[in-house]
Amino acid sequence: MFIRHTTAVLKINEAEEGFRNDLKDRCDKNISIDEIYRHNDLEHRDPKTMCDSKEECLNGHAHIRGMLMGNSSETIPVQKGNLMLGKWQRVLLFELDHAREREIIFSFVGEK
Amino acid sequence: MFIRHTTAVLKINEAEEGFRNDLKDRCDKNISIDEIYRHNDLEHRDPKTMCDSKEECLNGHAHIRGMLMGNSSETIPVQKGNLMLGKWQRVLLFELDHAREREIIFSFVGEK
Amino acid sequence: MFIRHTTAVLKINEAEEGFRNDLKDRCDKNISIDEIYRHNDLEHRDPKTMCDSKEECLNGHAHIRGMLMGNSSETIPVQKGNLMLGKWQRVLLFELDHAREREIIFSFVGEK
Repeated sequence: MFIRHTTAVLKINEAEEGFRNDLKDRCDKNISIDEIYRHNDLEHRDPKTMCDSKEECLNGHAHIRGMLMGNSSETIPVQKGNLMLGKWQRVLLFELDHAREREIIFSFVGEK
Repeated sequence: MFIRHTTAVLKINEAEEGFRNDLKDRCDKNISIDEIYRHNDLEHRDPKTMCDSKEECLNGHAHIRGMLMGNSSETIPVQKGNLMLGKWQRVLLFELDHAREREIIFSFVGEK
Repeated sequence: MFIRHTTAVLKINEAEEGFRNDLKDRCDKNISIDEIYRHNDLEHRDPKTMCDSKEECLNGHAHIRGMLMGNSSETIPVQKGNLMLGKWQRVLLFELDHAREREIIFSFVGEK
């Protein structure tokens, strides 16, 4: 399972609203969108890394959140066609900047 | 290598007691069990996410720690039957809430 | 993709200098090399975990950074010989202590 983005993460955790809000609060407090990020300094940014709209570019907070939140891939065992997730485990997608269309690639290895 | 839990993580790092205590200190300080977590607000929690005992439920800190500590899976190369870990690398299980029986799934792909 | 080290991480994120400096600033501030780490207390360290030079040993900050920065492995889908990375995704190696020679193992599964 691989997510093709730098400002969203796929994670396995409990699908519980309170926890999701705890995480959001913590991000908003510790890796706030209002901090000064060099990534958001468009004057000094390499033009090759410039995105289409200014809004898309100003996401320094999301990159840092992504770095601390985990990897881009997760490998889940499958048995008889079922994901072998634990009782409380669910696959969650966390948007670290703002919601948009996302692309995820699922690859399967092993015997049928 | 996949751990079927949301309050424990499998990580590869050095098996050194001082480091483990450094990590514990940091968690206790920055993601303290004494903070207020919405996840621990059992009155407003979806009954479907309610666990068997109250003690099991009050683990908001552990979910946040798990989110910041890494993914649920780790893929380690194997050569001639040996894990190709680096000199200082060891597979460690970190309990983020309290110790209990845990289930880990090992899957192998490739040729013999 | 597997890195055989505990003080460097392989991550997928944007190859943008401002972001890399944001991350470095954050590490220097929150997981500073100047903090007191039990891992650096060589008097009480298990001799089996002692490294060759004193400088190599005093890296408590790097172990904590590694724990928060992600896993040792990342699995990237490949199609027709190309890594299926997203538009902004690049494979980056972050040194958490100081630069040195590093060893990375690439393993491939699937059909040709």
